[in-house]
Amino acid sequence: MPPQVLISEVGPRDGLQSVKATMPTAHKLAWIDALFAAGLREIEVGSFVPARLLPQMADVAEVVRHALRHPGLTVMALAPNRRGVEAALAAGVHKVTLPVSASEAHSLANVRKTRAQMVDEVREIVALRNGQAPHLRVEAGVSTAFGCTLQGPVPEDDVVRLAAALAEAGVDEVGLSDTTGMANPAQVRRLFERVRAEIGARTGAAHLHNTRGLGLANCLAAFDVGVRTFDSSQGGLGGCPYAPGASGNVVTEDLVFMFEAMGIDTGIDLDQLTVARAALRAGLPGEPLYGMTPEAGLTRGFVYADGRAAAGDQTRASFR
Amino acid sequence: MPPQVLISEVGPRDGLQSVKATMPTAHKLAWIDALFAAGLREIEVGSFVPARLLPQMADVAEVVRHALRHPGLTVMALAPNRRGVEAALAAGVHKVTLPVSASEAHSLANVRKTRAQMVDEVREIVALRNGQAPHLRVEAGVSTAFGCTLQGPVPEDDVVRLAAALAEAGVDEVGLSDTTGMANPAQVRRLFERVRAEIGARTGAAHLHNTRGLGLANCLAAFDVGVRTFDSSQGGLGGCPYAPGASGNVVTEDLVFMFEAMGIDTGIDLDQLTVARAALRAGLPGEPLYGMTPEAGLTRGFVYADGRAAAGDQTRASFR
Repeated sequence: MPPQVLISEVGPRDGLQSVKATMPTAHKLAWIDALFAAGLREIEVGSFVPARLLPQMADVAEVVRHALRHPGLTVMALAPNRRGVEAALAAGVHKVTLPVSASEAHSLANVRKTRAQMVDEVREIVALRNGQAPHLRVEAGVSTAFGCTLQGPVPEDDVVRLAAALAEAGVDEVGLSDTTGMANPAQVRRLFERVRAEIGARTGAAHLHNTRGLGLANCLAAFDVGVRTFDSSQGGLGGCPYAPGASGNVVTEDLVFMFEAMGIDTGIDLDQLTVARAALRAGLPGEPLYGMTPEAGLTRGFVYADGRAAAGDQTRASFR
Repeated sequence: MPPQVLISEVGPRDGLQSVKATMPTAHKLAWIDALFAAGLREIEVGSFVPARLLPQMADVAEVVRHALRHPGLTVMALAPNRRGVEAALAAGVHKVTLPVSASEAHSLANVRKTRAQMVDEVREIVALRNGQAPHLRVEAGVSTAFGCTLQGPVPEDDVVRLAAALAEAGVDEVGLSDTTGMANPAQVRRLFERVRAEIGARTGAAHLHNTRGLGLANCLAAFDVGVRTFDSSQGGLGGCPYAPGASGNVVTEDLVFMFEAMGIDTGIDLDQLTVARAALRAGLPGEPLYGMTPEAGLTRGFVYADGRAAAGDQTRASFR
């Protein structure tokens, strides 16, 4: 049995809320269906935030209901507060992710709450879950864990302390997010090791960006220290790109290629992923998509971690 | 003392011979001067090949003579055969690199010689060096070490055997090149470890490409198993890009950023590297340049491995 990782696709949330255009609901549903068909088994399908703040997410409840049809898919959504979690619960999500900044400056700018207030909010949400919906999984995502564009470097002690406080507040998983694309592999290893030493198996996903081209190197570093869940977005959509060519989120296609080429099973089919890419493109015409593997195609003689050969002749033409 | 790596800039050779335009000599010299000023201490300045085959390299002897002015700079050139090495010696290079394919199909296509014939040629070149120029360093670069677009996968045993034969033939260093952009981090670790077990300290540089976005992850993997010399090219110039956005060589700027951010000293200044990038752009107007760090800028509060703070305010504007 090859080692396995879970790729958690965040494009329908992180990607779609970062672009100016709103993807029509029918296209969102088609994209999510195609992602599921390609083998994705955890998808962050939207944000439960007021539609006046993020009109791109106004249809999130409908998107959740549709995604729930897929057996074996963990349907996940972001909720920034208790009200959002209540709406997510009503829609039927399996898992919510709650963003909590490690940088006080970012926390105040982003949600107008201090880190301590956010930990209190998380504790209330866990109480709500424990009382009304024990099946709901709750993840806290520590944003700006590797640095902040507002305050600069974020002390590692702050991140470890926050992760401990969130675990103590009762969340199931604590992920670390490189919100601003400042992480490097040495830091990724150090910080995940320290967090794991503090909260053990509640250590969650690596959410890493490719702002300075280090996305895959950082994912490799996280894998090396035991991380097995990785957030990424198809086409690198979202994640505050600075400039053309400077994508934000780690690109799902490249991440899957890296792991599968290394003999690490993702359960995802790269040819099917191109179908999903076409669905994404159809729903957001003109939006730039990133990714080197989609451009270059699979390598000649490519074999998946589970031993399957790639379909077609692995030329660029067949993969695109 | 932080750990150190040597970044070997291959742009003036690998980059300039891959583009259609010929960079005027004066621009080559200005670019090399700027690279030296940024801290590069090994530069592959050209190829000693017939000008009718590669007109971009017709001025290589003049470029070598100019580069030799810089104290402490290792002036390196590629030579595909004995005749090229003789010309390189006459020009005064410190080091030659001899490409030898691990794939028989690639060897025949590229130099019309079998691998065994190339090893014989290398042995003759070493005899020439030993007799006439004992100061000349000789590197063999094993191309297609991680796979070949002609033959597909390249058996690792073939690479290890070839590295052993080249070391036995008397070269000072044997590097491994991902000529076709097919390497993955697990393979990079495995192969460098196997080669080191076979030829010890003669194990040389990692020459890795970014064709599928894995360039930096592969460099990290090589560093993890003891590699301390890395080939890269400014702006990712060269290395057979397949399509816009799909750069070939690992981008010097991103590689330096990764190592310095990790606390690994490169001796290179990223602000000064932007001056060199401008010189490259001036000499090749209109040619696409790659690199995410040049787009995004340095991170806020960035500190080099040696403790220096970055110049300016590390915003994108100051870095570009």
